[in-house]
Amino acid sequence: MSQTKDKTEKMASPSPIPSRSPEIRHDALTNRWVIFSPARAKRPTDFKSKSPHNPSANNTPCPFCIGHEHECAPEIFRVPSDPAWKIRVIENLYPALSRNLANPSQNNQCLELDCADRTLTGFGFHDVVIEAPVHSVQLVDMEPTEIGEVLLAYKKRIEQIMVFESIVYIQVFKNHGASAGASMSHSHSQIMALPIIPPSVSARLDGTKEYFEKMGKCCLCVVNMEKFLIDETTHFISIVPFAATYPFEIWIIPRDHSSHFHEVDSEMAVDLGTLLKLMLRKMCIQLNNPPFNFMIQTAPLQVKESQLPYTHWYLQIVPQLSGVGGFEMGSGCYINPVFPEDAAKVLREVNLTTKA
Amino acid sequence: MSQTKDKTEKMASPSPIPSRSPEIRHDALTNRWVIFSPARAKRPTDFKSKSPHNPSANNTPCPFCIGHEHECAPEIFRVPSDPAWKIRVIENLYPALSRNLANPSQNNQCLELDCADRTLTGFGFHDVVIEAPVHSVQLVDMEPTEIGEVLLAYKKRIEQIMVFESIVYIQVFKNHGASAGASMSHSHSQIMALPIIPPSVSARLDGTKEYFEKMGKCCLCVVNMEKFLIDETTHFISIVPFAATYPFEIWIIPRDHSSHFHEVDSEMAVDLGTLLKLMLRKMCIQLNNPPFNFMIQTAPLQVKESQLPYTHWYLQIVPQLSGVGGFEMGSGCYINPVFPEDAAKVLREVNLTTKA
Repeated sequence: MSQTKDKTEKMASPSPIPSRSPEIRHDALTNRWVIFSPARAKRPTDFKSKSPHNPSANNTPCPFCIGHEHECAPEIFRVPSDPAWKIRVIENLYPALSRNLANPSQNNQCLELDCADRTLTGFGFHDVVIEAPVHSVQLVDMEPTEIGEVLLAYKKRIEQIMVFESIVYIQVFKNHGASAGASMSHSHSQIMALPIIPPSVSARLDGTKEYFEKMGKCCLCVVNMEKFLIDETTHFISIVPFAATYPFEIWIIPRDHSSHFHEVDSEMAVDLGTLLKLMLRKMCIQLNNPPFNFMIQTAPLQVKESQLPYTHWYLQIVPQLSGVGGFEMGSGCYINPVFPEDAAKVLREVNLTTKA
Repeated sequence: MSQTKDKTEKMASPSPIPSRSPEIRHDALTNRWVIFSPARAKRPTDFKSKSPHNPSANNTPCPFCIGHEHECAPEIFRVPSDPAWKIRVIENLYPALSRNLANPSQNNQCLELDCADRTLTGFGFHDVVIEAPVHSVQLVDMEPTEIGEVLLAYKKRIEQIMVFESIVYIQVFKNHGASAGASMSHSHSQIMALPIIPPSVSARLDGTKEYFEKMGKCCLCVVNMEKFLIDETTHFISIVPFAATYPFEIWIIPRDHSSHFHEVDSEMAVDLGTLLKLMLRKMCIQLNNPPFNFMIQTAPLQVKESQLPYTHWYLQIVPQLSGVGGFEMGSGCYINPVFPEDAAKVLREVNLTTKA
């Protein structure tokens, strides 16, 4: 039974004991880090193309359901800490990275002569956040305070992992729906803790720093263009960004400058839960309940908040309305058929409020 | 009837006359260019999520079939230039960029105060190469000389477009199969000519330049590690790269240093056709005839071959075996469940040769 291998496991059932440890390789040509994770697939020769199966919404009971805890990988913590839990944070049964390897050295060299490529051991954490005890409840169905508790569970887990000095970035993300990469229909999200700064994060830090140096302020502190605004709460605004990569992409941005998501307090978490729920409801209505991903775009760890006046965290929501073809894969340039100001208008004008 | 809107058009039938011209916007935060192309979708409110439909392999006759030329957008050229054509290069009926706009200025400024974002008009070319007159013939079925003729059609079209000084990069790509982004099952590829250097190309140029400066040679001229090799011909080798982003990703690389794909001559084109056909056949056998993309990774235009000792063109083939989830979207870091040396072995050991 698969427990959130998500995307990659569509193709083959992985063997539970990997024959080889994961590795992280850097390609000098594309300047990209790639995680090689044999735990996430069976032998290469079995690696045949298949149609992605749709995880059934009704496959209860599943290992993530209350009462089936023994079918899961080890638990890290639960909220509250008694048998009637509301949220569980567990290890991923098919982790892309291994918490049991020695911490990597950033200076590992490739063994080949004439080779500028680098390899790290695949040390890291890959955890799952089960967002509700009951199979049929999705995030959008939950109360803002309950969504706030899920967000605080992310925060708590990030703070636990931060003590490992070699972990420099933590990616929190959610895949909802098979075509968004989810293999389990029970509502859950994932936390991946990495010993490298991933490419998009480096690009984002460079971009925001350049903006700061040119304009004298953080680029997300100045987002006040009415035509891109969808909604706002006490501590957050939601917008469709000026150059949205994907149609109907939404960013939820804290009003006050903050670089790290894990700086949120309980009040902000509930406020963020309110706006996140509203955005998910609006997407359901206007876009026909699409599969979606969300990603928390935060700053690297091991850097103090005061050293990052230029980078501002945000939560990025991407409804899965289009696939990716050779143009995007080859060029890294995306085609978006909907202007952001039009998408913002469509989402702004749904007759729903945070009070609804 | 859709004529290669590919990916984005899965969602909505575009109106033939766009109400607004395409724009290319640069996001300061992500340092990414995005093409906004209203011609590729209907009104935003109609932009509902749908399951991708699978283009039927049997929907003959289609507009790309011989005898249906009048159902297509204007022809640019055909090979040979008589009614019994073998290859046609035509305009895309739903182009992401418009050839009818004024050439853009790279210095266009955003009109908003305090805005470092830039916008270009969406000037460019988006063409389709119909690879065969008959619906049922796919590239893998064709003779190496016929595939060579398709490659020479790319070259000819690139050389025609190069006269436009504002076009700085041309992305040639093929989407094969619905989940790889193809909307038409008739064998075809696409040519997108851009007024910007796309993000992945910039990263590649930086990466190869850094390698050259450090190691004193081009990083693709030194690819000779046996364990990554699949096959070789007179002028080309095929490998699974050391840090392949995708499982079973294949690169076909010219043996002799060359920065621009369009420098291939007729003999090389047939030789490349031989190796490309062999790779497609091996993928079919070992990976169960998967959907795939290929992309020609070449150097920017308006730069002379002699100025680019560090960048080497290659053809990248990616079988579609896995989707992308929130981790990849958020971080730009990919998880590959198959080590490249294992994938190379699987492809090397198929009992097929270029002579078969």
